[in-house]
Amino acid sequence: MINITLPDGSVKQFDKGSTPMDVAFSISAGLARNVISAKFNDDVVETITPLEEDGNLVLLTFNDDDGKQAFWHSTAHLLAQAITKLYPGVNLTIGPSIEKGFYYDVDPNGQAISENDFPEIEKKMLELARGKHDFHMHPVSKPEALEYYKINNNPYKVELIENLTDGEITFCDHDDFTDLCRGGHIPNTGFIKAVKLMNIAGAYWRGDENNAQLTRIYGISFPKQKELKEYLELLEEAKKRDHRKLGKELKLFAFSQKVGLGLPLWLPKGAALRDRLEKFLKDAQENAGYQQVVSPHIGQKELYMTSGHFQKYGEDSFQPIKTPQDGEEYLLKPMNCPHHCEIFNAQTWSYRDLPQRYAEFGTVYRYEQSGELHGLTRVRGFTQDDAHIFCTPEQLDEEFKKVIDLVLYVFGSLGFENFTAQVSLRDPENPTKYIGSDENWKKAESAILNAAEEKGLNYKVVTGEAAFYGPKLDFMVKDALGRQWQLGTIQVDYNLPERFELEYKGSDNEMHRPVMIHRAPFGSLERFIAILIEHTGGNFPLWLMPEQATILSISEKYENYSKKVLSLLKKHEIRATFDNRGETMGKKIREAEMNKIPYMLIVGEAEVENETVSVRKHGGEDLGQMSIASFAEIINAQIDKEIYKFEV
Amino acid sequence: MINITLPDGSVKQFDKGSTPMDVAFSISAGLARNVISAKFNDDVVETITPLEEDGNLVLLTFNDDDGKQAFWHSTAHLLAQAITKLYPGVNLTIGPSIEKGFYYDVDPNGQAISENDFPEIEKKMLELARGKHDFHMHPVSKPEALEYYKINNNPYKVELIENLTDGEITFCDHDDFTDLCRGGHIPNTGFIKAVKLMNIAGAYWRGDENNAQLTRIYGISFPKQKELKEYLELLEEAKKRDHRKLGKELKLFAFSQKVGLGLPLWLPKGAALRDRLEKFLKDAQENAGYQQVVSPHIGQKELYMTSGHFQKYGEDSFQPIKTPQDGEEYLLKPMNCPHHCEIFNAQTWSYRDLPQRYAEFGTVYRYEQSGELHGLTRVRGFTQDDAHIFCTPEQLDEEFKKVIDLVLYVFGSLGFENFTAQVSLRDPENPTKYIGSDENWKKAESAILNAAEEKGLNYKVVTGEAAFYGPKLDFMVKDALGRQWQLGTIQVDYNLPERFELEYKGSDNEMHRPVMIHRAPFGSLERFIAILIEHTGGNFPLWLMPEQATILSISEKYENYSKKVLSLLKKHEIRATFDNRGETMGKKIREAEMNKIPYMLIVGEAEVENETVSVRKHGGEDLGQMSIASFAEIINAQIDKEIYKFEV
Repeated sequence: MINITLPDGSVKQFDKGSTPMDVAFSISAGLARNVISAKFNDDVVETITPLEEDGNLVLLTFNDDDGKQAFWHSTAHLLAQAITKLYPGVNLTIGPSIEKGFYYDVDPNGQAISENDFPEIEKKMLELARGKHDFHMHPVSKPEALEYYKINNNPYKVELIENLTDGEITFCDHDDFTDLCRGGHIPNTGFIKAVKLMNIAGAYWRGDENNAQLTRIYGISFPKQKELKEYLELLEEAKKRDHRKLGKELKLFAFSQKVGLGLPLWLPKGAALRDRLEKFLKDAQENAGYQQVVSPHIGQKELYMTSGHFQKYGEDSFQPIKTPQDGEEYLLKPMNCPHHCEIFNAQTWSYRDLPQRYAEFGTVYRYEQSGELHGLTRVRGFTQDDAHIFCTPEQLDEEFKKVIDLVLYVFGSLGFENFTAQVSLRDPENPTKYIGSDENWKKAESAILNAAEEKGLNYKVVTGEAAFYGPKLDFMVKDALGRQWQLGTIQVDYNLPERFELEYKGSDNEMHRPVMIHRAPFGSLERFIAILIEHTGGNFPLWLMPEQATILSISEKYENYSKKVLSLLKKHEIRATFDNRGETMGKKIREAEMNKIPYMLIVGEAEVENETVSVRKHGGEDLGQMSIASFAEIINAQIDKEIYKFEV
Repeated sequence: MINITLPDGSVKQFDKGSTPMDVAFSISAGLARNVISAKFNDDVVETITPLEEDGNLVLLTFNDDDGKQAFWHSTAHLLAQAITKLYPGVNLTIGPSIEKGFYYDVDPNGQAISENDFPEIEKKMLELARGKHDFHMHPVSKPEALEYYKINNNPYKVELIENLTDGEITFCDHDDFTDLCRGGHIPNTGFIKAVKLMNIAGAYWRGDENNAQLTRIYGISFPKQKELKEYLELLEEAKKRDHRKLGKELKLFAFSQKVGLGLPLWLPKGAALRDRLEKFLKDAQENAGYQQVVSPHIGQKELYMTSGHFQKYGEDSFQPIKTPQDGEEYLLKPMNCPHHCEIFNAQTWSYRDLPQRYAEFGTVYRYEQSGELHGLTRVRGFTQDDAHIFCTPEQLDEEFKKVIDLVLYVFGSLGFENFTAQVSLRDPENPTKYIGSDENWKKAESAILNAAEEKGLNYKVVTGEAAFYGPKLDFMVKDALGRQWQLGTIQVDYNLPERFELEYKGSDNEMHRPVMIHRAPFGSLERFIAILIEHTGGNFPLWLMPEQATILSISEKYENYSKKVLSLLKKHEIRATFDNRGETMGKKIREAEMNKIPYMLIVGEAEVENETVSVRKHGGEDLGQMSIASFAEIINAQIDKEIYKFEV
């Protein structure tokens, strides 16, 4: 007998050689119907893998990330089988699951496969799937494996097998199809009820452009047709909300080849939005006792030698800036912390002066390879909503909690209700990766865990994900499309205070090292705005909208009145424009809709007479005629509802 | 007879060989008494120089810059005479006038001269001056000149004379003293009524450290004792107001060796002041139709090749930033204009969309030699209150005038009532120095001159001082100590629109080039704040003060009430602090005075009972007990008076 421990901590006894599916059936037949894979002692296994020893077992369904991977990997086998049948002579190479779906790289051996063939391939896949063929792994000897693929004339698999130097070689069979495979499958093809091939691309064998060019076919699959439909709708919606597309349409930002890749230029509307976000956070930070500071965007190389950043990142970063004389070298700042340490060091401090909380919207520059750049989410220059708190060790817990409060306020006011947190601790098995003493790391890690617990965060703990200078708490938000994004971060740091020899005089009249907290609720303005665009589809909270209303005049006759309305709106602190072009009302409304302007104020004969405007909401709702004062009330009430109350 | 044209344009006839003094006497005896030097056809001459041809004559008094130079240069002769008498054997070298006063470099030949000897030297100088000895220039042949100094054992003068290869060699005599001299003297020593030797320093002969070390004695002199006294008081006051000293005392900014020279770190109070200045200008700019944009602090080298900045300044600037891959090179941005051109280029424009006015508080970096750095007035990184206006040629005049209005609003609200303007045109004799067509330069220059004229500016025109890309209008303000500072600038630019191929569609449906205006009312925040500190001595306008009031509690008993006052002040948007330390009231007041806090709110038993505060102004005036609301009224009334009304 073996002891199997389940995720709830319960331990059950089974015959040695029982399978995960046996365990599932022992719990309920309903569960067993949905189990498609399993994890035994942290390794993914098949549902039919015999368990030979005591251990922890997690049964996986399609709702689990690892379950999805098994599902998609199995579908790659199905795709390969279908292609082999439809295109005899095709050579298979590799077919892994990926974040969303799977792909298979094939050498078509001169045959043409295009996206036009997708419906036929999909049909064949589903036809094969309906056979409910079991996936069956079995070991083969290296000579047997080589023999198999030599007979099949597949030099790619032969090369793969020749390079396998350790471990067992396994094949996976289902139906009449066999593939070289390490494992991780669902029980049988019958689970695969919905398949969609997404696109086709060229790929070099082993990613080397000197090798043969293969055809890569991407696809995705689901246990239910409905899930595929929802996924495709989500994709469609995500495409519409792509911040690069909306950023251009709404004239928020642009890129210039001449200025450089990954260096956004903020157009007036985007800059106004940024400015408003900055002001929002500045105000909250002022209430929370932060002080703004300003530091330069460069620092001497020595500064980053002191901080340790140069030794760690120097080679892969923007290279040092030399000067015509003096032989000095400067670096574009990749972070603000070394500067803030020097600001702290510019004065002497007593314990009574702490905490000192320095905030700066600090623009930093980090070199990313051009292939990794993506809109505003991966850039080479970005503005962190950065702050550093210098406090006594006794104040650390309290300060950490206050920062969490601030982060929650920010998320709430920007409509991110759905978030989780991740506590990243160091990898205890790899202590040389980190700077700082063991004792300090323990103190810092417990401060974070305490605060996360006390603030009731929905958090998970991962080891080995800490920054090299300290452990951290990261926030992940879920957007309107259910996608996860990493946002704000809070990090404890015992390291920089040591390196910069920061100190304060304690109540004992001795000098002590302060502790430092790094934090950025948005993370970076660029990334945050990108996520906000995709989350809201450009329909930002009203308080943040660059243009809250636009005046559309029915005829040029009403220009004077329209201008009067504009100036009244300004007095009410409503950001409005006046579309004075000689276009038709239909065209003006269409453009205002496209620009996502929340309110259109239509002005005609009646409105001039009554000193009113006719209010049309974005989307089409008609609020009727009203005075400017009444309109201002609507706006203010809406904004009041949007912004959370922040009490310190 | 010769025709002499005077500055007022009048032409008078004189005998050939008449002197400037003759001309002065022909106008009035009073004038003649004050004339100490003259300029004939732009060359400085003596008052006794015979005029041999027609020309323009300017008679100079001590109130003219060139008059002062003649005065101080003459005093250097007097110093040399005095030293020769007191320290026989001293070797004289050179003794020029400088911006404020003069110096003389002497080789003391082993004798000790120190600041302790200054009173004796000054006494001797004044004694000699009272002899009213005429300064008399006369030509000598090179052999005569060499002979004279060989006899006097002065190898320095011998070397100087040996190196004189062209022009006449002249000596200047007064009393029993003779010096090698090119000229530029006052009539006689009698004008020199007040002398002050300032300090003593080492200096190498000809500035070369391989040469003999000389003793340099700095001094200044005046026609009246009262003027010297005022000057010394001014110096004393300037020392007190030195922005480097006050910046430290008021905790506005700091420098760090590690961060780098010339790279200010803005401490919380300084950052708050900066922020307020930015907000003030942003608001005014928004009213004036500007839009904020945000651009990165680097740009590809190509960007600056396009703008022409790299070719012009590349070698003397911070060097290009290389990247680990891609082979790209970036430059730290020395100005914002190329980025703003690319922002303009990110969209297409019709003439109806112009002007586009892009504003950015853009931090730029320029390499200055370390010896040239000075506090905040000469730095390596600074934030320009930059904006670029892209308009049609027809809009240029109007836009230029609007910018002047904005500049005047800024100066007024910040207490600079006293300013002049300078129109810098190109040097017509050196056209290759400038980029752009002759026609465009003419258009731009006339637009500036028109606007300056129409706005009634007190301006002067100087040729040859234009930027390489266009003519400009600079503003010079006079601070409370009467010192001149260059501040805001407005520049027309026909060049960058050409280089960046900017265009808009005109009413004729053809594409046209816009004109560009660069402008920065403050110039840079760093420099402006430095000047503001020295102008106000740290007593900034109340609206700008980092701390407008501080609450001083008589005993710890009143802590709760003090905190309530603090939160009430916050509601009234008054920036206040609460000095909660257990120090004596005397010490707290002294420190608040040192920190230039405009209002101290004293809280004791009576104030708690009456729900009031006792208000003490910076400097000591007692305003008595009052409610917080009454205090807020005083503050608001004061601010209302300070900020100019800005109407667009």
